[in-house]
Amino acid sequence: MSLTEEMTALAKRARLASRRLASLSTADKNDSLMAMAEAIEANTQRIREENAKDMAAGAESGLAKPMLDRLLLDGPRIEGMATGLREVAALADPVGRVIEERTRPNGLKLSKVAAPIGVIVIIYESRPNVTADAASLCFKSGNATILRGGKEALHSNQAIAKIMVESAAKALPAFPADAIQVVPTTDRAAIPELLSLTNEVDLCIPRGGESLIRAVAECSRVPVIKHYKGVCHVYVDSAAELAMAEEVAFNSKVHRPGVCNAAETLLVDRAIAAEAMPRLAKRLAGAGVALRGDEPTRSLLNGSGIDVTPATETDWDEEYLDLVLSVKVVDGVGGAIEHINTHGSGHTEAIVTGDAAAAKRFQVEVDSSTIFWNASTRFTDGGQFGMGAEIGISTDKIGARGPMGLEELTSYKWLGVADGLVRQ
Amino acid sequence: MSLTEEMTALAKRARLASRRLASLSTADKNDSLMAMAEAIEANTQRIREENAKDMAAGAESGLAKPMLDRLLLDGPRIEGMATGLREVAALADPVGRVIEERTRPNGLKLSKVAAPIGVIVIIYESRPNVTADAASLCFKSGNATILRGGKEALHSNQAIAKIMVESAAKALPAFPADAIQVVPTTDRAAIPELLSLTNEVDLCIPRGGESLIRAVAECSRVPVIKHYKGVCHVYVDSAAELAMAEEVAFNSKVHRPGVCNAAETLLVDRAIAAEAMPRLAKRLAGAGVALRGDEPTRSLLNGSGIDVTPATETDWDEEYLDLVLSVKVVDGVGGAIEHINTHGSGHTEAIVTGDAAAAKRFQVEVDSSTIFWNASTRFTDGGQFGMGAEIGISTDKIGARGPMGLEELTSYKWLGVADGLVRQ
Repeated sequence: MSLTEEMTALAKRARLASRRLASLSTADKNDSLMAMAEAIEANTQRIREENAKDMAAGAESGLAKPMLDRLLLDGPRIEGMATGLREVAALADPVGRVIEERTRPNGLKLSKVAAPIGVIVIIYESRPNVTADAASLCFKSGNATILRGGKEALHSNQAIAKIMVESAAKALPAFPADAIQVVPTTDRAAIPELLSLTNEVDLCIPRGGESLIRAVAECSRVPVIKHYKGVCHVYVDSAAELAMAEEVAFNSKVHRPGVCNAAETLLVDRAIAAEAMPRLAKRLAGAGVALRGDEPTRSLLNGSGIDVTPATETDWDEEYLDLVLSVKVVDGVGGAIEHINTHGSGHTEAIVTGDAAAAKRFQVEVDSSTIFWNASTRFTDGGQFGMGAEIGISTDKIGARGPMGLEELTSYKWLGVADGLVRQ
Repeated sequence: MSLTEEMTALAKRARLASRRLASLSTADKNDSLMAMAEAIEANTQRIREENAKDMAAGAESGLAKPMLDRLLLDGPRIEGMATGLREVAALADPVGRVIEERTRPNGLKLSKVAAPIGVIVIIYESRPNVTADAASLCFKSGNATILRGGKEALHSNQAIAKIMVESAAKALPAFPADAIQVVPTTDRAAIPELLSLTNEVDLCIPRGGESLIRAVAECSRVPVIKHYKGVCHVYVDSAAELAMAEEVAFNSKVHRPGVCNAAETLLVDRAIAAEAMPRLAKRLAGAGVALRGDEPTRSLLNGSGIDVTPATETDWDEEYLDLVLSVKVVDGVGGAIEHINTHGSGHTEAIVTGDAAAAKRFQVEVDSSTIFWNASTRFTDGGQFGMGAEIGISTDKIGARGPMGLEELTSYKWLGVADGLVRQ
């Protein structure tokens, strides 16, 4: 069987499974998830054995230590997968939710109801626990999943998926075994093959570094929901309370610098820069943040004892994921909006101000998924949003935008009810 | 300037215009639309002159008569464009609509608010009045439009867009002139160039025949919302009231057979086929509908005096857009669902039944944009849904699904408000 035939057959099985998933009850899905959680725990040894094969092969092929660490499945991580499955079982079923209802003058009752998307391909890198997370979220939202993890994690991923499917089928005879499938080959050509199957695959969600996501978006013929990077901004307006600005900027940058919702650029209103900049810079530098400033920032901090490297043009587009921050003086809220819409990645921005009109303008005109007024950028997160779980954060505008939980893994249908109504 | 440079410059202008559109007030947008409507009427002569150039070139190049008819802009059609613009002005502004609100335990107030998508490319065929319709819907929803109509309509399309832009700029100094642009070249290579600009273009909506839509989807690197075709089904269940079934099937097929929400296939439950089939067939054949039946249908109608051509395998996937109907006997609601999910186009289906459980199962398991219970398939329409206007009917599942009005031309943002909240 050629790779094309193999991927087509796999995707067709997923499509058929997705038809059955659409009709499972909430209780059926939750029972399956609870059975999966129990089986993951009961099969800890088996998972560790399969993972050991991946770890050995990884070590032999010279995988770097951080990669090996991400690949490892130890007791706590396996337990974490089981806990995650139970948490997904406890979440509300997103399918069947009535989004909107209307009755037309002719008596036609219309409702817009959340429905599964269908078949979702998840492409991810080395962490094998993503297998359980992603598959469980897709399953709870009524979607069949095709999982394509890193080639170095194939044994681990296959073992996890197999345990999930076997235990669910035992708990629920109606469970379609092809609801969760791992691409059985590490051939890279499998990805473009899968993503050309527009009749069988409804969506692809790539999770990982920017180059992976770009490669997937470039080859895909099916819709892709991407999360490229988070070049997040904090703008301190002239009407900001400076103590608050300091806290928000500090938290946005320093709380967890290695994640996508951490701030990468601080924008300070020219009108208050002389007072605000030294104060903000001192607080940030005190936590070990390396500053890269534009010319006005550097003059304002000249002689303050705070080191500021000159920012280059590429700094404004950079996702440092580290204790590094670019800093710029802008002309009011208009200047901040202009800078963000030019250099931002559409992820998350924050304005600190006491001026409601400035905040409103910022929230209306900035073209990003999430825009905070007097809050840290770090709140863009499925858990913080009350979604309970998160499969990613979309920087796209078609389909889901911002944090993606269960509801964001659904599409919708229009259902109409009447009593023999015909069009005049 | 190369074509690549020309298309990039055009798209970058659209992107900048989209930033300005996001901040226009509802009153600003409505004033602009009213000014456009007046200008279209006042410039009837100018539009007719430009259209006459297209008509002459079309006649010379041997365009078929129906194509020439679609290309023609006469007085009533120009008046129709102006009326359409006034209707769009009267519709509610979809931007800023609060879709959902929640307050988190930490006090963070989150709202999910409708926002413009950004830059939308509309690709369409010969009818130049689409220029005004599509541009006005995109404008009201805060999006910049790049219009690419049929090459035979270029003079007409350019004249319409120019009148709209000039009149809006006069009425509203803040109106960005690049909000509505017509691709100034008929070079076919312009389309893949435009649709490769993932930083500048957010969405493409192709309108027209299946081959146009497939070609666009095939070359696009930006998201595409498609409406391929409407292979719509009416399923008559064993629990149907036959008089109602007759009316719904008749209306779905005969009311306007040339449109996408007309029925193409009638499915009849085996349990009542002996009684229902002759009755349904007689009513349809009486209106001149040519029937193509499977073997059981043909036996049931044998000797009835109604002609039934044998249906071939390709009939089940066919969009006739004519007084032709394929007819099949199926095993209950399960058989109907199976047939529709295999052969349907995801557009619209209807079930006729008095059995609420069968209707519910049909609505849950059929994977289509719109599913009616005891109503004609003909109701899938922006006007019938109360959307006021329609830019198309999506058979996609990511982004808008089903009829697309103004709300379906928006994305959303998450807006968060707090009082200096930081993450612990």
